[in-house]
Amino acid sequence: MKKSDVVQTILQDRKENFPDGVAVNIFSPANIALCKYWGKRNQELNLPVTGSLSVSLGEKGTTTTLRISQTHQDKISLNGTIIGKESVFAKRASQFLDLFRTRHAPYFDLVIQSNIPIAAGLASSASGFASLVHALNQLFAWKCSNKELSILARLGSGSASRSIEPGFVEWYSGIHEMGLDSFGECLSYQWPELYIGLLIINRNEKQTSSREAMQRTVTTSPLYSSWPKKVSEDLFTIKQAISYHDFDLLGKTAESNAMSMHATMLSAWPPIHYACAETVLAMQKIWNLRSEGLSLYFTQDAGPNLKLLFLEKDKDVVLNHFPEVEIVRPFKD
Amino acid sequence: MKKSDVVQTILQDRKENFPDGVAVNIFSPANIALCKYWGKRNQELNLPVTGSLSVSLGEKGTTTTLRISQTHQDKISLNGTIIGKESVFAKRASQFLDLFRTRHAPYFDLVIQSNIPIAAGLASSASGFASLVHALNQLFAWKCSNKELSILARLGSGSASRSIEPGFVEWYSGIHEMGLDSFGECLSYQWPELYIGLLIINRNEKQTSSREAMQRTVTTSPLYSSWPKKVSEDLFTIKQAISYHDFDLLGKTAESNAMSMHATMLSAWPPIHYACAETVLAMQKIWNLRSEGLSLYFTQDAGPNLKLLFLEKDKDVVLNHFPEVEIVRPFKD
Repeated sequence: MKKSDVVQTILQDRKENFPDGVAVNIFSPANIALCKYWGKRNQELNLPVTGSLSVSLGEKGTTTTLRISQTHQDKISLNGTIIGKESVFAKRASQFLDLFRTRHAPYFDLVIQSNIPIAAGLASSASGFASLVHALNQLFAWKCSNKELSILARLGSGSASRSIEPGFVEWYSGIHEMGLDSFGECLSYQWPELYIGLLIINRNEKQTSSREAMQRTVTTSPLYSSWPKKVSEDLFTIKQAISYHDFDLLGKTAESNAMSMHATMLSAWPPIHYACAETVLAMQKIWNLRSEGLSLYFTQDAGPNLKLLFLEKDKDVVLNHFPEVEIVRPFKD
Repeated sequence: MKKSDVVQTILQDRKENFPDGVAVNIFSPANIALCKYWGKRNQELNLPVTGSLSVSLGEKGTTTTLRISQTHQDKISLNGTIIGKESVFAKRASQFLDLFRTRHAPYFDLVIQSNIPIAAGLASSASGFASLVHALNQLFAWKCSNKELSILARLGSGSASRSIEPGFVEWYSGIHEMGLDSFGECLSYQWPELYIGLLIINRNEKQTSSREAMQRTVTTSPLYSSWPKKVSEDLFTIKQAISYHDFDLLGKTAESNAMSMHATMLSAWPPIHYACAETVLAMQKIWNLRSEGLSLYFTQDAGPNLKLLFLEKDKDVVLNHFPEVEIVRPFKD
């Protein structure tokens, strides 16, 4: 089963527009998983071993401007700079675009603007592929549903399936071979008081890609076999916490889920350790503040940065202790 | 089943001496687990979920001087200082001595000299209880076998069962309810070229005792269920590595085992994180040196300190990179 088979299945019999010269311009949010996606059951199609659940980051994400190229190659710019076609970034984008080229749209101009650090465990590829898929849908007037867009975005990057919609999004693992039942869907709950604080410890690109780390964990970690059960319990608990607005239950479960994901990496060989010394200091600070009564939790992805979870009422205290934090309000009106 | 039942079973029908005024003086080595003991199947008797394997630390350990007291209470001194009877240390020692008091030996004088930091994850309680049990055996002329002494030492502290003998020691988990098959036994292999480097990052007592950490992990970690299988594989591999003197296999397996143990703690709730920022920096330094070709590995116990594993031939290089390291030669003539 190849990516092109999935694309063909979704787009078959769909009328396409080929609006030469027209540019579409779409923003998609980054997302942060409260219950993590860690491990693939199918590498080619980015089909996950388990479900996962995220919150989209409001105004933090990627804007993609897309048009059909008048030249004989893709032209890709990222944050104002043209990217050489031999770069990993351009290759990954062009390979994804290969799935959608036709005689009438052989090449594309792609202008990508991201307001989050690239490849530092802040889900830049998720918002990137989500906005690109949204843009393709609009450019060609496919009129795909969000479910279909989520499936297409997943072919670019697994977590992109959760960046098609705002708010809380659950990505279903699905069971089918082609993955047509593995997509992200928005939960109906809002939580305006929920704040996220991006604690950027290191903006550099990570040494081990999340793709490689995930695969090494699945292949070598003796603890990974316990991960799916942990996820299924945490997914249930987090959805309960969201529906009751039980913040401590949400924070505790999200933090525990992240720590367990990193635990599976520690036990991989060679060990994968995304935390740097400053990450450990920040964690200890959070645990100390919590022991003094502050409802402050964190989650961590495949990088050294932490994402703080807290409520609006504690904003000033959190900023007092972490003045460098960048605040995101996922449910800002 | 109580500790006193085990003691009675082992010591029954044994003639005892009560040498008033005579002092015995015994050294037992600390030990470092290459395959960790993490989790009890019986709290009272310190019966482990799995087997484990350690190397005794040669001249690093505890010397206990024991005599029957002429007064009406225990008198305990540690490294030259009399310990108040309300201290945790004195209580733990006195409670253990309760198991061996008789009409002729109601109280004891205990002089403890340790040349390793107390309660910093350097197995001070292991050598302490091992030397105390050795001393009781000599004082009362029980003539217990090392197997019996190991069982008695285990009642004081699980890992003490591995400090009765020098060299490589395997502690069998056993299956019997009373734990008479759960004891440490010396392997016949020597390895004079094996060096251990104590990298003391923090000499302070740890915040969470290993007893508490172990229990919290078993009770709350979703990854713990995978630990016993990991140990059984690592035990097999480490014994192979020892028998063939395959240092890289030994180092890799020991480091992976330690990382996996800490991984089970990360996934406990609240998370247990013994590494401090300096621990992480040291780990990264070790991984970098290894990627440059140096055969240097580490293990970590319930504390922030690391124990480096390397061969004699690399001593100078290791000391060059870690000048503060304290070298231990377990198989020094």
